Amino acid sequence: MSHYNAPLKDMQFVLNELAGLAEVAQLPGYEEATPDMVEAILDEAGKFAGGVLAPINFSGDQEGAKWANKSVTVPKGFKEAYQQFVDNGWNALSGNPEHGGQGLPKVVSAAVQEMWKASNMAFSLCPLLTLGAVEALELCGTPEQKEMYLPKMISGEWTGTMNLTEPQAGSDLAAIRSRAEPVGDGTYKIFGNKIFITYGDHDMTANTIHLVLARTPGAPEGVKGISLFVVPKFMVNKDGSLGARNDAYCVSIEHKLGIHASPTCVMAYGDKGGAIGTLVGKENEGLKYMFVMMNAARFAVGLEGLALSERAYQHAVAYARDRVQGRAIEGSASGVAIIKHPDIRRMLMTMRANTEAMRALAYSVASAHDAAVRHPDAAERAKNQAFVDLMIPVVKGWCTETGNEMAYLGVQIHGGMGFIEETGAAQFLRDARITTIYEGTTGIQANDLIGRKIAREGGATLKAVIALMQQTQAAVAKQSGAEFVAIGKALATGIDAVSRAGDYIVANFGSDVRAVAAGAVPFLRLMGIVTGGWALARGALVAQGKIAAGDADPFYAAKIVTTRYYADHVMAAAPGLTQEIVEGGASTMALPEVMF
Amino acid sequence: MSHYNAPLKDMQFVLNELAGLAEVAQLPGYEEATPDMVEAILDEAGKFAGGVLAPINFSGDQEGAKWANKSVTVPKGFKEAYQQFVDNGWNALSGNPEHGGQGLPKVVSAAVQEMWKASNMAFSLCPLLTLGAVEALELCGTPEQKEMYLPKMISGEWTGTMNLTEPQAGSDLAAIRSRAEPVGDGTYKIFGNKIFITYGDHDMTANTIHLVLARTPGAPEGVKGISLFVVPKFMVNKDGSLGARNDAYCVSIEHKLGIHASPTCVMAYGDKGGAIGTLVGKENEGLKYMFVMMNAARFAVGLEGLALSERAYQHAVAYARDRVQGRAIEGSASGVAIIKHPDIRRMLMTMRANTEAMRALAYSVASAHDAAVRHPDAAERAKNQAFVDLMIPVVKGWCTETGNEMAYLGVQIHGGMGFIEETGAAQFLRDARITTIYEGTTGIQANDLIGRKIAREGGATLKAVIALMQQTQAAVAKQSGAEFVAIGKALATGIDAVSRAGDYIVANFGSDVRAVAAGAVPFLRLMGIVTGGWALARGALVAQGKIAAGDADPFYAAKIVTTRYYADHVMAAAPGLTQEIVEGGASTMALPEVMF
Repeated sequence: MSHYNAPLKDMQFVLNELAGLAEVAQLPGYEEATPDMVEAILDEAGKFAGGVLAPINFSGDQEGAKWANKSVTVPKGFKEAYQQFVDNGWNALSGNPEHGGQGLPKVVSAAVQEMWKASNMAFSLCPLLTLGAVEALELCGTPEQKEMYLPKMISGEWTGTMNLTEPQAGSDLAAIRSRAEPVGDGTYKIFGNKIFITYGDHDMTANTIHLVLARTPGAPEGVKGISLFVVPKFMVNKDGSLGARNDAYCVSIEHKLGIHASPTCVMAYGDKGGAIGTLVGKENEGLKYMFVMMNAARFAVGLEGLALSERAYQHAVAYARDRVQGRAIEGSASGVAIIKHPDIRRMLMTMRANTEAMRALAYSVASAHDAAVRHPDAAERAKNQAFVDLMIPVVKGWCTETGNEMAYLGVQIHGGMGFIEETGAAQFLRDARITTIYEGTTGIQANDLIGRKIAREGGATLKAVIALMQQTQAAVAKQSGAEFVAIGKALATGIDAVSRAGDYIVANFGSDVRAVAAGAVPFLRLMGIVTGGWALARGALVAQGKIAAGDADPFYAAKIVTTRYYADHVMAAAPGLTQEIVEGGASTMALPEVMF
Repeated sequence: MSHYNAPLKDMQFVLNELAGLAEVAQLPGYEEATPDMVEAILDEAGKFAGGVLAPINFSGDQEGAKWANKSVTVPKGFKEAYQQFVDNGWNALSGNPEHGGQGLPKVVSAAVQEMWKASNMAFSLCPLLTLGAVEALELCGTPEQKEMYLPKMISGEWTGTMNLTEPQAGSDLAAIRSRAEPVGDGTYKIFGNKIFITYGDHDMTANTIHLVLARTPGAPEGVKGISLFVVPKFMVNKDGSLGARNDAYCVSIEHKLGIHASPTCVMAYGDKGGAIGTLVGKENEGLKYMFVMMNAARFAVGLEGLALSERAYQHAVAYARDRVQGRAIEGSASGVAIIKHPDIRRMLMTMRANTEAMRALAYSVASAHDAAVRHPDAAERAKNQAFVDLMIPVVKGWCTETGNEMAYLGVQIHGGMGFIEETGAAQFLRDARITTIYEGTTGIQANDLIGRKIAREGGATLKAVIALMQQTQAAVAKQSGAEFVAIGKALATGIDAVSRAGDYIVANFGSDVRAVAAGAVPFLRLMGIVTGGWALARGALVAQGKIAAGDADPFYAAKIVTTRYYADHVMAAAPGLTQEIVEGGASTMALPEVMF
């Protein structure tokens, strides 16, 4: 069975040295998130992830969630693990203290979430969806809704779901047809079918609270006529006890490539006369509420890419150390462990470097989010929010695409054993495959990036990020040694590549949006590669400082080696991507549709 | 259910215009392979693939091969399809006419094999393995062995298997422990366990002929002490009738990520006193025979990458035309089919361009193989053989890695539906995953490429290929129009990238083999990208000639557009790969093993 050891040392390094945890702990309301406290939290979370969640990851995949009689049963061990998760307070980590949450900053919950996702992605989706529903209710629920649902959802006693997708409405929510009829007593009867509903039903808790997008009678067409409703599985009495079963049922679950333990439900609302729901916020504003939550959800899915990459890396390292096969290429008396083969080393270094780059970038974005929400200075809040808005599609799109590539390499390192399910490497590849799709495909992230986040503001925030990267580049240039020469060169080339591509996007988005959009995903990838390299370079500078100050911990030397590997191997792709973006738009759109 | 339409037009174009089918038909023994005859064969093969094999591809995956009582049952429809396959003579297509085969050249059987692999990869593995066993017996079997086995294996009445791998001996055959004890009557008793034996047992034919690597008593250690034996499932009497059941049993099958319909067997030889076998060729020469066959097997697996890419492309095009979702990015009154979205178009073009590049390259290599074997001029044979030897690891490694990437994009184009198994897109991704591993991982192909195929001869054949590519580049430079400017530029840059990387490999292989080997896979990828672009450019020139001569078939304009897309988007990666190869060796090997 596969083990998971939370990479506490790198997590701590990123939190403290790159993501400014100490500064976050100065923000109003986050005073308890001191480095010492956070270290203790991460230690405990690591134990829970490795000791409770990881051991049921493979068995959960093999057994899968089961559906019968409109009810879902989770795999063996999941119910018990969930109860422990709730009992230990993990569900409440980032919740609002007003409703029983611990109110920890996002940068801390990001690290903890990485552990849940890495140890058991299918399990982690249940609390993740609850968190999304909690945020929606926090944001725009009535006082009664908050009082009725939030304490139990924040503790985890009840879970939450998000019901957006319908068969004809995947990425395009304008096409939603579910309807909500006012009963006259302030409640609505909800009718409609929803698909792809994660943990839409399960047997881990007594109640499940569904948030459902639907149209009220006479609502405008398209996205302007969508409202948000809360629809509990069991009605809730005034005293908080459970009442009647609501008309909201899981009518089937999907047979999927991965995340088998996470039930992906087809939900039927109102087949027996109408599911009782109450309006969240204002009528016809449902999509706006969804968009506000979207950043959080997209960031969280980005973390899944990072987490699966870390897990696949650990799995591959263990195999590569253990598996003796073939002589060394330079000659050896007998067979050697495959970790000694240069190509295995290349793959492991690729996994390691990308994982560390994703972590460094993602936690930095989480930290900026905390400042955007809590900083006392409005200008600081605005600046950080602009950075977060720009980087969310990058974290989501780049980390998930990269996570898939790393899981692929993880299988490759295992050779023939990687193709055998019991080895476990294939599960990471299968589980990762959904991450570039849900919460908006990579294409949707990339269009958001080039359109709303860059072209619409003439590239202002992008230019600010470029200026920050140039500061790092200047600091790297002051260091000596082959590693920093290579890092500095890659950073300079990468920044130039981003800058040229960004200029092209700003200049041409208005006049030739189809050609620009043809390069959207390559640009997203370019942004991820270069900003990831920037985040690593910041780490290498810190490491160099520690070494110069006499710290002999080999972690620091390794950080510099890994950053240099990334510079040589990953960032080398940057100019080619810019060429593709700048010169490739016409040929993408040139073939007549009929010729495909 | 998923359809498959053999891409006959592109196949014919590549065969006739790029792979020199007419010249191949001039070679002694291949006179029947006239373009007309080949066209008729491909038409029929396309009907069989689309009408018989494709319809049982998904059901075969879902049902899977089943094992019970040391016997394997194939999924529903496979037995009947196999019988039809044999009855129609497809198994005998490339077999030696002396033993009942049709003796068609490799370039023709490559196109036909592409169809079997694309329509049903799991099915296609059975005849593929038989073909490998046939080649081994052709090459070095005794007259008795040939007479006993070849006619029925070529017709397909019996199938064949290759037994190399043991639990401790995957890529490293030196570690093989199976043993063969001479009985005294010219036969041997074989003892040992083999794993990963494709179609090691099944219920489609009356007999299965196993070729097994084992050691005779007192044989030298390592690869020099391995002999090859033929071990039938049922003993064969002098009159050709079947005799006693031999002591060769399938004791379990693997639970795999993909190719579920193809049983991957654990074989036990000699558990009941010894499996009777006869020696093939000379004692201790088994590995040499395997290596001779290896080129054919590796080429065939390369075709699997091409085939799955084509299939995933067709599947994705059908979905992209059908699925209406979202408005056009430049604005539209209502939802549009997703094929209109630039990022979907980018993915489809990427799949299309890579598929056509792989086909153009692979068939050209097959054609060179035919010349290497049959050309009357020894110098021509040698020149072609050198080209084939250089390109086999590229076809195997690059086409399979690319096939995986394309199957990944195929899933992405389907959005959420791609993650649902019943859509079928995920199967191509799962099936493709083995192709970069079996018959030698990509790392092994890449080491073969840089070592045996380049460094050992000082890069002579590589330089010859570069000279050929430069001729194409010069011809491209004589064309006018934006397409040929872009193609010419990409070709020039790509050739330069290959040339610089090749020089580096030749110069440093002897002195710093580990650093060079760290860049082996990036170099293999570079070679694939650039030689694939070269093959496409040759096609674009032919297409331009047709257009200039007044041929209005839109196929030719599409060929030029696709080649230009490949130049802009795929070949743009070439210089970055060379940088990685030339500058990245040190950082790949720098991290101490203990730090992983």
